[in-house]
Amino acid sequence: MLKKFINDPRDVVEEMLEGFLAAHQKQVKRLETSRVVVRKEVPIKDKVGLVTGGGSGHKPAFIGYVGKGLMDGVAVGDIFSSPSAEQIYDAIKAVNSGRGVLCVLGNYSGDVMNFDMAVDMAKDEGIEVEQVIINDDDGSGSKDGMENRRRVDGEVIVWKAVGAKAEEGARLRAVKEVAEKVNANTRSMGVAHSPCAVPSMPHGGEPNFTLGENEMEIGVGHHGEPGVEKVTIKSADKTTEILMNKILEDIPFAQGDEVSVLINGLGSTSLLELYIIYRKVAKMLKEKKIRVYTSYIGEYFTSLEMGGYSVTLTRLDDELKRLLDAPANSPLFVQS
Amino acid sequence: MLKKFINDPRDVVEEMLEGFLAAHQKQVKRLETSRVVVRKEVPIKDKVGLVTGGGSGHKPAFIGYVGKGLMDGVAVGDIFSSPSAEQIYDAIKAVNSGRGVLCVLGNYSGDVMNFDMAVDMAKDEGIEVEQVIINDDDGSGSKDGMENRRRVDGEVIVWKAVGAKAEEGARLRAVKEVAEKVNANTRSMGVAHSPCAVPSMPHGGEPNFTLGENEMEIGVGHHGEPGVEKVTIKSADKTTEILMNKILEDIPFAQGDEVSVLINGLGSTSLLELYIIYRKVAKMLKEKKIRVYTSYIGEYFTSLEMGGYSVTLTRLDDELKRLLDAPANSPLFVQS
Repeated sequence: MLKKFINDPRDVVEEMLEGFLAAHQKQVKRLETSRVVVRKEVPIKDKVGLVTGGGSGHKPAFIGYVGKGLMDGVAVGDIFSSPSAEQIYDAIKAVNSGRGVLCVLGNYSGDVMNFDMAVDMAKDEGIEVEQVIINDDDGSGSKDGMENRRRVDGEVIVWKAVGAKAEEGARLRAVKEVAEKVNANTRSMGVAHSPCAVPSMPHGGEPNFTLGENEMEIGVGHHGEPGVEKVTIKSADKTTEILMNKILEDIPFAQGDEVSVLINGLGSTSLLELYIIYRKVAKMLKEKKIRVYTSYIGEYFTSLEMGGYSVTLTRLDDELKRLLDAPANSPLFVQS
Repeated sequence: MLKKFINDPRDVVEEMLEGFLAAHQKQVKRLETSRVVVRKEVPIKDKVGLVTGGGSGHKPAFIGYVGKGLMDGVAVGDIFSSPSAEQIYDAIKAVNSGRGVLCVLGNYSGDVMNFDMAVDMAKDEGIEVEQVIINDDDGSGSKDGMENRRRVDGEVIVWKAVGAKAEEGARLRAVKEVAEKVNANTRSMGVAHSPCAVPSMPHGGEPNFTLGENEMEIGVGHHGEPGVEKVTIKSADKTTEILMNKILEDIPFAQGDEVSVLINGLGSTSLLELYIIYRKVAKMLKEKKIRVYTSYIGEYFTSLEMGGYSVTLTRLDDELKRLLDAPANSPLFVQS
């Protein structure tokens, strides 16, 4: 049983949202009739609308990224569950200014099914809408079966890039191409040594997986899905080497490439550890003459209190460098 | 034993620093001969220098706050241990531009002793230097014995305010008065249900305190120091009410006051929970007709992977509102 500070477990998402909206009321609002969080000023004139969504429990994802230079609307699911097609449809309608809407979603069957339905519903109403499915996780599926790969935290880089592109006034087609480019050039790999728990019972919940006292799981998914293998816990350097070797060979990244690095804490792994991990990543990239253009280190896409981290590399070109450098301002992501 | 992603436990601080400096080399640097992190451009002409410091393991505190509108230099201690007087002295010298230096520190005996010595050493060299000791923790010491109260995360609000004041070009005396004003108007109270571990042994460490399966500790300190009492774990609302009642009556905060609210996660407590907690804080303040001017919700001052949170209220006047609103840009705190 993992202890938690909650009230009735059935109310966690609604109560979290109440607190979130109270804290960030200058920037975001909730649609009156749907569990959807949007930028206060939507629809934004002459801008492609950007929608994402997924289960709760991943904060700062998803709602923390609703803001200038990032997403316009998020459909909010229950803990680790897809939002409904209705919610996604409501989000699309709310952010549509007539310049079309791009949906960015992770490759999870529930999300894929519900986004598909929502996109069809919106198209039936004459809204121009496209979607891009993110599948950056090297811990799931082989290179030949990309369509089976899960989304992990690479989606954050997609949001940052498409958010900046849409803010520049680009058309829907160009914004979609940026999402596809980031996805094609992004690989991630995670590891966990401790589980999290979906809230249940008063103030706690059962761990979502079990590992031995000295075990960790390489390639773990964002909801505790099994990864590549369970191994004895190793040093930060050795663990990071395992993740990096898989990532580097998969695209493959090569000498002369410029990349962004995201070291994402899954919940209870300290920033102290994440910087020790980044140290190793930077060293390995230097040896391979791959240049770190920019880095993000911290909790960008968590799984409640899971103990672990993921590493994400994105190969950048001039356009992506410009888009990652652009300012952004949302409740939980600020870049000036 | 708590699992960790580290290498040799003796190297955690040095390796963390290596990663941190590599990631944030555009903004910060390390002094060549001392474990001190400073803004790249120190000493900054015509600006009062600002120094803080303390043990490692509290990230984003302390080094995450070195940047524009925040601190100029941080002396970096070992995990949960004070930096040496020499390090603090080196930091003071490095940031001194001739307009004087203010040291901001927490009320822990090791820090107080070493800052005292460093300040004396700097004064002997003719540097104008002052210090303000922060003691915002309602969980330690009675109101009559303020000098025994510990610092918890209220120091973050002090850094934000004095950082902005110094950036405005204020003189040392005025900057010091801001630190004293924030400290006098700030109260905090924490709670934890799970311990953290100082790294030791390969890849792990022993928990720094033990609590029963259903227990939590009210008023816990930032290193797991005992608080007010151990009680059965309660709902988020009831727990928050206990903390808030203690905070509200201590200054006391009154109808018509304007405050900043900081809900600080201690390590493994999820943002989902922190927003549920903020919901209750906002409700209680509304009932008492105290206005929330601004809020900070997230991990601002952690204790490695400790499970718990603290609530901090600061009573604001027009000057403090202006200072909290000012932009800031450091590796781990950005406000635009």
